[in-house]
Amino acid sequence: MERELISWLRERLPPHPLLRLGLGDDAAVLRLADVDECVITVDMLTDQVDFQLSKVDPRRVGRKALAANLSDLAAMAAKPLAGVVALALPRVPLLRRSSAGGGVRSSTACEQAVAHGGKEYGLELAVALYEGMLPLAEEYDLAIAGGDTNSWDGPLAISITLLGAVTPRGPLRRDGAKPGDRILVTGSFGGSILGRHLDFEPRVREALELHARYDLHAGIDVSDGLSLDLAHILEESRCGAVIDIDAVPIADDARRLAERLADGSTPLDHALSDGEDFELILAAPADEARRMLHEQPLAVPITDIGEFVAEPGLWQIDRSGVRRPLAPRGWQHT
Amino acid sequence: MERELISWLRERLPPHPLLRLGLGDDAAVLRLADVDECVITVDMLTDQVDFQLSKVDPRRVGRKALAANLSDLAAMAAKPLAGVVALALPRVPLLRRSSAGGGVRSSTACEQAVAHGGKEYGLELAVALYEGMLPLAEEYDLAIAGGDTNSWDGPLAISITLLGAVTPRGPLRRDGAKPGDRILVTGSFGGSILGRHLDFEPRVREALELHARYDLHAGIDVSDGLSLDLAHILEESRCGAVIDIDAVPIADDARRLAERLADGSTPLDHALSDGEDFELILAAPADEARRMLHEQPLAVPITDIGEFVAEPGLWQIDRSGVRRPLAPRGWQHT
Repeated sequence: MERELISWLRERLPPHPLLRLGLGDDAAVLRLADVDECVITVDMLTDQVDFQLSKVDPRRVGRKALAANLSDLAAMAAKPLAGVVALALPRVPLLRRSSAGGGVRSSTACEQAVAHGGKEYGLELAVALYEGMLPLAEEYDLAIAGGDTNSWDGPLAISITLLGAVTPRGPLRRDGAKPGDRILVTGSFGGSILGRHLDFEPRVREALELHARYDLHAGIDVSDGLSLDLAHILEESRCGAVIDIDAVPIADDARRLAERLADGSTPLDHALSDGEDFELILAAPADEARRMLHEQPLAVPITDIGEFVAEPGLWQIDRSGVRRPLAPRGWQHT
Repeated sequence: MERELISWLRERLPPHPLLRLGLGDDAAVLRLADVDECVITVDMLTDQVDFQLSKVDPRRVGRKALAANLSDLAAMAAKPLAGVVALALPRVPLLRRSSAGGGVRSSTACEQAVAHGGKEYGLELAVALYEGMLPLAEEYDLAIAGGDTNSWDGPLAISITLLGAVTPRGPLRRDGAKPGDRILVTGSFGGSILGRHLDFEPRVREALELHARYDLHAGIDVSDGLSLDLAHILEESRCGAVIDIDAVPIADDARRLAERLADGSTPLDHALSDGEDFELILAAPADEARRMLHEQPLAVPITDIGEFVAEPGLWQIDRSGVRRPLAPRGWQHT
């Protein structure tokens, strides 16, 4: 099966100037003569945690797995270079559950695969996952250098490792925020579970452009949750932050989700803690932040949501000027 | 849990000159200014396929996962640089099965973990896996640059990606064998399932030394099986091979296994097809092969087991001079 997949991939992967030797040997060979520093990141996505294979087209699952990894390169303001993909493929599909909320698609690659008989399932699933990844790889000029494809009796797991080139300004890190820096974010937050967590655009181009044009002190992508990922910056930068709670850009999805759940949670709660928005949180000196907000150089809005402060901790302040502690909430890696 | 693991790792990982930024950010930062070409390889090992977590100390599992990846660097004659580790950890252990053959260890890290209660299981398991990996990483001067640690309801999956530096002679590839080249192997083959598949030494130093001292045309490590991995060289090199069947070095394990199974299989059958020997198959011109065999520069023996030929296919020849087709057998990636 792995051999068939390699044949399929060899026909579809475009040549890439980085790749001296691609799929089919014990390892791929990359030309890195022009790269002085690179970042390396790995992210594993698993069924029932990061996606529900029984409910979505596997192409969207494959796309998400690569996009989440690209988002980590964005967080470091690194240019995508190359990646490898490891798959643990279930031998047989989980039962396709009917869902009252989402509705069941009538003809996904997954169902087609099952129709072909269980034996073909793994290959068809792998092909569908790659069909979701390849256009994104091409869009971001990422060389798919190799992979490892396994069948087993467990659920689907996808592990992707990416290399990215550090730009002349160096990597954007979590540990550079300084008291007085403004907290800037791209886009809006909350309710990604309604679908955006699968179909988001990683902010790679945005991070590279901002890092080149402005003096940024720190950055992170929002995977766990706006407040929790901000807390990750605070921990590494050893400082605190005050969020101007009325300034937090709330996604329409957050409003829809609060309404649908009707559990007392507000759209703001969802914006602060849902996670998987894959937007950027950035720290920039006040004058630089003013310039960014004035110039708005991206297609997606940049919003100022508060300030880094010397005192460790996280607070929210509302328009009445009342400042209260804010507990970071979001996805806990247990 | 991932944060606790990162703290644990930060205390134990030695500083490494390659690592500008290690664990704790969205990606690690590597200095690669001195590296013009690197190889990248990924290998995912899964419970019940590559190991049986219920039967072995997880330290041996972690060690195997890293060693198998190092073996892929050996196959390319590349020097280990850095690696990242992605784990999908079961929330609760599989039932520990009593095994008539192997005997059950009385106090593994796994059991200790279970004794601490299910909640701690994932962290204890991850720690044990890393305890198996770290000494090997240090031995091979490999920087553990980062990782991703996840809990889920599936079995254990370990995905490791390694970078290696290509030496001035370039990478050792599968596609360079030429008719007339001798087939050389390190070590002996068969019966690795009796334990060697967990505790083998990857042939990294051996490959680097041979590649530096001799003119090698092609190479591969034996993971799938001696005859099947030789067939991988044949396929990429577009040639054939004749194995001198009486010259194949048979491991004592192969004899023990044939005896234990008593199913009509011979020690030679096991040597040709069992796999996970993680020895090297090399192609070298006849005069160079003679020199290697005479000098025997390694602690492990080098053996000449036959010749590459122009006609595609695989044959065995015995001491009576009878030549018969040999079907490549071994681990099929289904």
